[in-house]
Amino acid sequence: RTRNEVLFFPSEVACVEHLFSPSHYSSFCSFPHSVETSFSRLLRCILSATSSLDICVFAFSNMDLYRAVLALHNRGVIIRVLADKDYTAIPGSQIWSLRYSGICVRCGVGSVYMHHKFAVVDHRLLITGSLNWTLTAVQSNMENVLITEEPELVQPFIKEFHRLWECSDPA
Amino acid sequence: RTRNEVLFFPSEVACVEHLFSPSHYSSFCSFPHSVETSFSRLLRCILSATSSLDICVFAFSNMDLYRAVLALHNRGVIIRVLADKDYTAIPGSQIWSLRYSGICVRCGVGSVYMHHKFAVVDHRLLITGSLNWTLTAVQSNMENVLITEEPELVQPFIKEFHRLWECSDPA
Ligand SMILES: [Zn+2]
Ligand SMILES: [Zn+2]
Repeated sequence: RTRNEVLFFPSEVACVEHLFSPSHYSSFCSFPHSVETSFSRLLRCILSATSSLDICVFAFSNMDLYRAVLALHNRGVIIRVLADKDYTAIPGSQIWSLRYSGICVRCGVGSVYMHHKFAVVDHRLLITGSLNWTLTAVQSNMENVLITEEPELVQPFIKEFHRLWECSDPA
Repeated sequence: RTRNEVLFFPSEVACVEHLFSPSHYSSFCSFPHSVETSFSRLLRCILSATSSLDICVFAFSNMDLYRAVLALHNRGVIIRVLADKDYTAIPGSQIWSLRYSGICVRCGVGSVYMHHKFAVVDHRLLITGSLNWTLTAVQSNMENVLITEEPELVQPFIKEFHRLWECSDPA
């Protein structure tokens, strides 16, 4: 069966530590545990990558999403991040930290906004929607994230990522 | 077959007058004709509504999208527009013109952004993505619009629209 799922935000606030460290000792943590939220589902979906993760987002400042991408990178998953040029200069942007960690990051060229908010996991699973990868988007805004494996929807995004990647600035 | 389609922006610039007036006399118009673009496909998709159109967008200033919505309203299609409260005050916003035309418009309550950019045609076809309903989004930005009839994707948006509509400000 083809996976199709929609998540809405703002997400409930809950601990997501167990997704990073299974040994997380929840007694010392004040956030709710054992709660599945829109954000934990999104993180889980990203962390499911086993071979590649292509990310094309206007804004990337969310620390948990950053940790997820870093964890995948450390596991050997091939990560490519395409970001908006202007946004990378904003305080809190994790774009430079990603690059500093050895992750391949490119920025859009020209003066137009790279306004996408999508990612493709293992060339197979599309994550797209209105949600920028920021804390405000996750915790405050009304947002949507659509997750699908439907090839008719995934393939155009793979092709567009390739096109944008090729004409972006590797510097 | 379930309809699934992805459009990318910026759109090529071409005349869309024929979508509004079949008698458009193209000899006097300097834009390219007989060209199908991402924007003309989006307009066509919206104009395909026969019974209802539910719109939930952060920003709505694009005049062609406004004309499309107005044309549907004049045909008797039931339109509901849910917009971000702060954005409605921005110059160029068509939210008040929509209301002035007799279209049912509500604004999000509270201080959080209503950041969605989706519409549902005839409770059956979902249009969603990164694209705000502005001229810049259509003509300049790198954006995506996903169009699908897949019930597993459409139904959650219908449900969320209903929920947001009920808790929004009709004033
Ligand atoms: Zn915890
Ligand atoms: Zn023309």
